[in-house]
Amino acid sequence: MRTLNVELDERSYPIRIGAGLIADPGLILPYLKTRRVAVVTNDVVGPLYLAPFVAGLQAHGLRVTEIVLPDGEAHKDWATLNLIFDGLLGDRCDRSTTLIALGGGVVGDMTGFAAATYQRGVPFIQVPTTLLSQVDSSVGGKTAINHPLGKNMIGAFYQPRLVLADIGVLGTLPDRELKAGLAEVIKYGLIRDLPFLEWLETNIERLLARDPDALVEAVERSCRNKAEVVAADETEQGERATLNLGHTFGHAIETGLGYGEWLHGEAVAAGAVMAADLSRRLGWLSDADVARVRSIHERAGLPVKGAALGAERYLELMAHDKKVSDGTLRLVLLKQIGQAVISAEASQDQIRASIEACC
Amino acid sequence: MRTLNVELDERSYPIRIGAGLIADPGLILPYLKTRRVAVVTNDVVGPLYLAPFVAGLQAHGLRVTEIVLPDGEAHKDWATLNLIFDGLLGDRCDRSTTLIALGGGVVGDMTGFAAATYQRGVPFIQVPTTLLSQVDSSVGGKTAINHPLGKNMIGAFYQPRLVLADIGVLGTLPDRELKAGLAEVIKYGLIRDLPFLEWLETNIERLLARDPDALVEAVERSCRNKAEVVAADETEQGERATLNLGHTFGHAIETGLGYGEWLHGEAVAAGAVMAADLSRRLGWLSDADVARVRSIHERAGLPVKGAALGAERYLELMAHDKKVSDGTLRLVLLKQIGQAVISAEASQDQIRASIEACC
Ligand SMILES: NC(=O)c1ccc[n+]([C@@H]2O[C@H](COP(=O)([O-])OP(=O)(O)OC[C@H]3O[C@@H](n4cnc5c(N)ncnc54)[C@H](O)[C@@H]3O)[C@@H](O)[C@H]2O)c1
Ligand SMILES: NC(=O)c1ccc[n+]([C@@H]2O[C@H](COP(=O)([O-])OP(=O)(O)OC[C@H]3O[C@@H](n4cnc5c(N)ncnc54)[C@H](O)[C@@H]3O)[C@@H](O)[C@H]2O)c1
Ligand SMILES: [Zn+2]
Ligand SMILES: [Zn+2]
Repeated sequence: MRTLNVELDERSYPIRIGAGLIADPGLILPYLKTRRVAVVTNDVVGPLYLAPFVAGLQAHGLRVTEIVLPDGEAHKDWATLNLIFDGLLGDRCDRSTTLIALGGGVVGDMTGFAAATYQRGVPFIQVPTTLLSQVDSSVGGKTAINHPLGKNMIGAFYQPRLVLADIGVLGTLPDRELKAGLAEVIKYGLIRDLPFLEWLETNIERLLARDPDALVEAVERSCRNKAEVVAADETEQGERATLNLGHTFGHAIETGLGYGEWLHGEAVAAGAVMAADLSRRLGWLSDADVARVRSIHERAGLPVKGAALGAERYLELMAHDKKVSDGTLRLVLLKQIGQAVISAEASQDQIRASIEACC
Repeated sequence: MRTLNVELDERSYPIRIGAGLIADPGLILPYLKTRRVAVVTNDVVGPLYLAPFVAGLQAHGLRVTEIVLPDGEAHKDWATLNLIFDGLLGDRCDRSTTLIALGGGVVGDMTGFAAATYQRGVPFIQVPTTLLSQVDSSVGGKTAINHPLGKNMIGAFYQPRLVLADIGVLGTLPDRELKAGLAEVIKYGLIRDLPFLEWLETNIERLLARDPDALVEAVERSCRNKAEVVAADETEQGERATLNLGHTFGHAIETGLGYGEWLHGEAVAAGAVMAADLSRRLGWLSDADVARVRSIHERAGLPVKGAALGAERYLELMAHDKKVSDGTLRLVLLKQIGQAVISAEASQDQIRASIEACC
């Protein structure tokens, strides 16, 4: 098992990474406030992992409330969030009950938001079960639900007390989901960690084959990057926004097609290629750099062209994205491979050209 | 105009108290992040004060989104909160838009929660228009909505950047609401400010007659007490809980009768008398002390007997209240007049006896 820490003063917390961690309740016990916990999962992950996980906690004398949500991004909404509150209140969970999210990013984001707002805040632990949630959404304290007019529009910054990334559970993850997670892994290389990108260029096939050692290494290096960025900028005023490489384009794809058509990571992959193309138009990347960005995504089995929504629809959706501050569209672009910047320099025409070139 | 500060390090903010403040947009301008604001009010306060308030802001070049909610505690729920998000997203408000709550505690609590969670947090200003919201709910950063299974069960701690308490708007407040606000005013005297209680015993009739000087004095002294408590304990781990004198009993009344039957302040008044009676049973107050607590509430036109729900129903509802930590019912009681404590010393029988004596 490897451990790394997210340094946030009194809100600091450890991330533990390894195989078989969910079978060891001893890893969780020190982080509870009382012997009351509520485990939130969904109807896909639940049947696979809930019963043994809960039994392990109960064997240590914990009283466990189980809450099973319907699966899917389409349910990342208030109605489903309310199922968590119903479960907590129905079982008389109090302000010291610890909420444990057992699932992917959707379960993690919703459970985190529930923890942030149930009785104005209760303790929270993340047990992410997708690659994407292990390398990204479980770290950093962003929680949210969707609104019909936009993704993740309602949420809070709320840090967990512990993240347990058990790479063993990735064995049951569908291939398409594994690849989607790799988009966020590759992202860290592109925005701030050239050596990690080089490691990925050597080891991408091992990751696709779910080699446990490669997975532990990729999850750890990803989390380390994310933790460093979050520690420097908890509430996304500055550097943290660079984690959104490809996301403004990607959100346009996700929203434009309706949530759930493309996976988040797939949209981010196509978006990262668009961002690279746009960076080239600004004179920052070479043609070879853009090809390199395209290639690593292709090798990971990810899309490198955006959905054909039409450039005007992209621009409209992007203008609605939350990276718009006071009317100016700010995008995460690449000054070079391994170094992202937040920039308002791209003109509408340049953005349009990149969308058209990459769809 | 008087000003006092709530000291919370980088989240410190001023409370300004006086007559006619909402007519002066110059008081608000320095606290905005950009020229975009959204004013949230309801369909009772809106017709009285929204148009001139918005016109004043627009005259200073601000772009204003107006959001008018249905009035009443019954609408302090997710559906109504969503009207705020719909309005913000529909008008493309971004992360730097400042939300301004223009209304009583219901509008303030909901707008504050919307500000805490819209795009994970936007700037927030309180313009409280009821006595209760001026002396209590607008100060301290508690925000919330109700859940069918409990009041204020979903919320966040989120501080405003400014509170403008315009005692001029209290002129249109219904008598019953004014009196309900006095319950929270009296509370400060009882829990921690004996000189203020004595001042109230002398000036209660002036307050009922809405004498502006008396109102400014009462609002300021109340806010000063609340600000001190909040500064010492922002997230209610310790002393802040003493602000809940009468509230655990009071919440039982509000929930037991269904939200809206009794006003919050009315329930708190009856609850404070119950807490005083229970403090006497523990040997802390004399009969004369309890009579004094009853008398000041009676003179303010407030109920001094609880709703006849039956003692068992009270106990059941109180056990469900959030002041229950890990199974133990902790109540705010009085060690003496002017000094509250949080105590788990009262037995079920003693609590039952006080409920029966005060219903
Ligand atoms: N909070 C953040 O910082 C952040 C960052 C990135 C993404 N996100 C959010 O994360 C969400 C995407 O997360 P995701 O990709 O994990 O999607 P997801 O949670 O929907 O999981 C993908 C699918 O895999 C299933 N699944 C999960 N674990 C499994 C396992 N071990 N075996 C088999 N199936 C399993 C899920 O039930 C689901 O059907 C989006 O809502 C996105 O907005 C949040
Ligand atoms: N956040 C906190 O710390 C805190 C503390 C105490 C109470 N609260 C909450 O505050 C709420 C009660 O607040 P409230 O007593 O202000 O109730 P309220 O907001 O419902 O206002 C009472 C009534 O007066 C009307 N009104 C408001 N201002 C008016 C004016 N100037 N003229 C005429 N009518 C006016 C309102 O529309 C409403 O009908 C409850 O929901 C309670 O939970 C919160
Ligand atoms: Zn992402
Ligand atoms: Zn109150």
